[in-house]
Amino acid sequence: MKRVVIVGTGFGGLSAARALAREPVEIVMIDRNNYHLFQPLLYQVATASLEQEAIAYPVRAITRDWENMHFMLSEVTGVDFEKRQVITRENGSVPYDYLILAAGAATSFFGMESVERHAFELKSLRSAVGLRNHILSIFEHVSRRLDPARRAAMLTFVIVGGGPTGIEFTGALAELVRQVMVKDYPYIHPDEVKIVLLEALDSLLPMLPSSKLQDYALKRLEGMGVQVRLGAKVIGAEDDRVLLEGGEEITTHTLLWAAGVKPVPLAETLDAPKARGGYIAVSPALTLPDHSEVFVIGDMAYLEQGGEPLPAMAPVAMQQGEYAASAILRRERGETVRPFHYRDKGTMAVIGRGSAVASISGLMFHGLPAWLVWLVVHIMYLVGFRNRLVVLLNWAYDYLFFDRKIRLITER
Amino acid sequence: MKRVVIVGTGFGGLSAARALAREPVEIVMIDRNNYHLFQPLLYQVATASLEQEAIAYPVRAITRDWENMHFMLSEVTGVDFEKRQVITRENGSVPYDYLILAAGAATSFFGMESVERHAFELKSLRSAVGLRNHILSIFEHVSRRLDPARRAAMLTFVIVGGGPTGIEFTGALAELVRQVMVKDYPYIHPDEVKIVLLEALDSLLPMLPSSKLQDYALKRLEGMGVQVRLGAKVIGAEDDRVLLEGGEEITTHTLLWAAGVKPVPLAETLDAPKARGGYIAVSPALTLPDHSEVFVIGDMAYLEQGGEPLPAMAPVAMQQGEYAASAILRRERGETVRPFHYRDKGTMAVIGRGSAVASISGLMFHGLPAWLVWLVVHIMYLVGFRNRLVVLLNWAYDYLFFDRKIRLITER
Repeated sequence: MKRVVIVGTGFGGLSAARALAREPVEIVMIDRNNYHLFQPLLYQVATASLEQEAIAYPVRAITRDWENMHFMLSEVTGVDFEKRQVITRENGSVPYDYLILAAGAATSFFGMESVERHAFELKSLRSAVGLRNHILSIFEHVSRRLDPARRAAMLTFVIVGGGPTGIEFTGALAELVRQVMVKDYPYIHPDEVKIVLLEALDSLLPMLPSSKLQDYALKRLEGMGVQVRLGAKVIGAEDDRVLLEGGEEITTHTLLWAAGVKPVPLAETLDAPKARGGYIAVSPALTLPDHSEVFVIGDMAYLEQGGEPLPAMAPVAMQQGEYAASAILRRERGETVRPFHYRDKGTMAVIGRGSAVASISGLMFHGLPAWLVWLVVHIMYLVGFRNRLVVLLNWAYDYLFFDRKIRLITER
Repeated sequence: MKRVVIVGTGFGGLSAARALAREPVEIVMIDRNNYHLFQPLLYQVATASLEQEAIAYPVRAITRDWENMHFMLSEVTGVDFEKRQVITRENGSVPYDYLILAAGAATSFFGMESVERHAFELKSLRSAVGLRNHILSIFEHVSRRLDPARRAAMLTFVIVGGGPTGIEFTGALAELVRQVMVKDYPYIHPDEVKIVLLEALDSLLPMLPSSKLQDYALKRLEGMGVQVRLGAKVIGAEDDRVLLEGGEEITTHTLLWAAGVKPVPLAETLDAPKARGGYIAVSPALTLPDHSEVFVIGDMAYLEQGGEPLPAMAPVAMQQGEYAASAILRRERGETVRPFHYRDKGTMAVIGRGSAVASISGLMFHGLPAWLVWLVVHIMYLVGFRNRLVVLLNWAYDYLFFDRKIRLITER
């Protein structure tokens, strides 16, 4: 039986594994975490809406009934394409017949070390929980006596990046502050809290095809008290400030960087052709030019469709995972394989209570309809019955009672 | 208005605060954590049954509607009884008219530094999550190739202490291994896993008044595959072994110490009479002999009733908290105050699915009836609607599906 090694338990890797379950191949999945992480909801962990357990699900629990599947908790440090072996830190070399690389992306600070040192990011459970602990600690800190300048700096929150992650975090933070924290801290006035969203381009959500939706998102955020600044480019950061192009500075103790991604460090080590930004350039069959047994999918891969690069989004990774699995099975049966084609199902971003924007199959939604679509899609995607229920209960509770129950400071 | 400062948000401090809410006093509560922790369920966090958020509840959420209450997130480093001031690390000196000290207990290793260095404990969220990560990592590690001696040592789990914490953790671990982990790790045979419970005395649960219940607990644990060793005294530990009195050694990489408590370090700094073990000796009115405005309650305090010291248990702390609050209010109204009297409502410990022991108002239960009593009492005590529901759902899920959904390794 041929062995398929899958690196990464994200949306891409998991979709591939699911499509290969119970098929006549041996699957070996490798990841440095023992769980699948629902990354798009990390912002809700960071804003005290969901506990981390609600968006992370043990791989062994998901795959328990797939008898052709083995999981290895290991860091993958490289691949020897000639010998057909994946090199891991803890499990040595793992030989493969087919390889699916789906290790995802990391945050890119575009080489700005000062930003990297001072900014939070939303890429892992650890970073999301760290940001939550930081935000809650800020409010505790401000409840002590402070000089006015320091108090103002602590109550200023700066988010960089007007894509879905930046927008969703900003909206959730504004609601956390205005609906929950002001009740917890009666001596902090909501108007003292400044939330600033910086976007280097001249519109929010540039991936949306409609300027109407982009304007709606901007207006909604402003209605929630957020200062949205378009065309504002960050060039550095210090302990207590963010530096903008043109010389302006914003004093703050909280900087969330949601403005760029790059492939994980593993991509650099691979002896494979790279596209701009270090992404792995793949053929229309999602394979390496010289190694048709190696698939690269999801945020690591670079492929154009209709003259545009495919976006780094969960739906792309999932469709690519299913494609790679099916291509392997077809090739094993001696059948022909058609090139990969991404079926764009749309884009969406939630802004706040009952408020979102969505572009689905050419239809534009905003407000409550878009929010309901967002809700259904996210509940459906969440892996596993229990998590889905826990998430739904948390959301229902927060929605009904204007509350966030997870506001624990677990590390100081 | 007189100011009552309460140090500690555990069962004692919270009961006192609740009884003083909306009364004509100012309450200041101080703790180094921003949450109330349901300590008796920490073993369920350590065995992947409950997420940490289910047993910790933000203090500001509990006390939000009590307008006479302020919370300070601070470490208390001492008390100046003469000046009537609590000394904190982050908030300076906090003056009081009445003081309720309820800072609880820490783990006592009886001076054995080697054990302190190598053992896990169950006293904080952090320690419970650390133990969960360790147990799950052990199974991942064993799934790699290891020499047989090392494999056997890794699959040996040693618990020291036959009180409720030791018993409940041991039972939950045995079920985790036999009902969940063997399905996740088909190449580990359940009989390879050795769980050893060591108790220095000659019976389990010595606080129970009936040897029948003690024997039941012993038999049930043995029926679950646990090796229970009475009269076994630990004298030291190394990286990969536990040393027993008499020269015997048990090779293991997991040692949980649940064999002793002592008052928190704050007790040492206090200029107050100490009882054996460093506990603060209080009058029958729970006050310091020289300072009737200072109450010491819960695990920090030493008081005898009927010739026996009161046990370090949540019900004692809660009754003492209510007593201290009521004594303050009565004294303010010029009324007399009767000495504290503990109404013993009983003791219980859960062993496994549908199996517990309980002694309540002189009645002895074991098996399913005791387990149902345990369930009802714990659900009732859990603070806050949402937590109660989440805990219940988790338990129902685990019970129905023989599963534990929280088996995430969040730190390696």
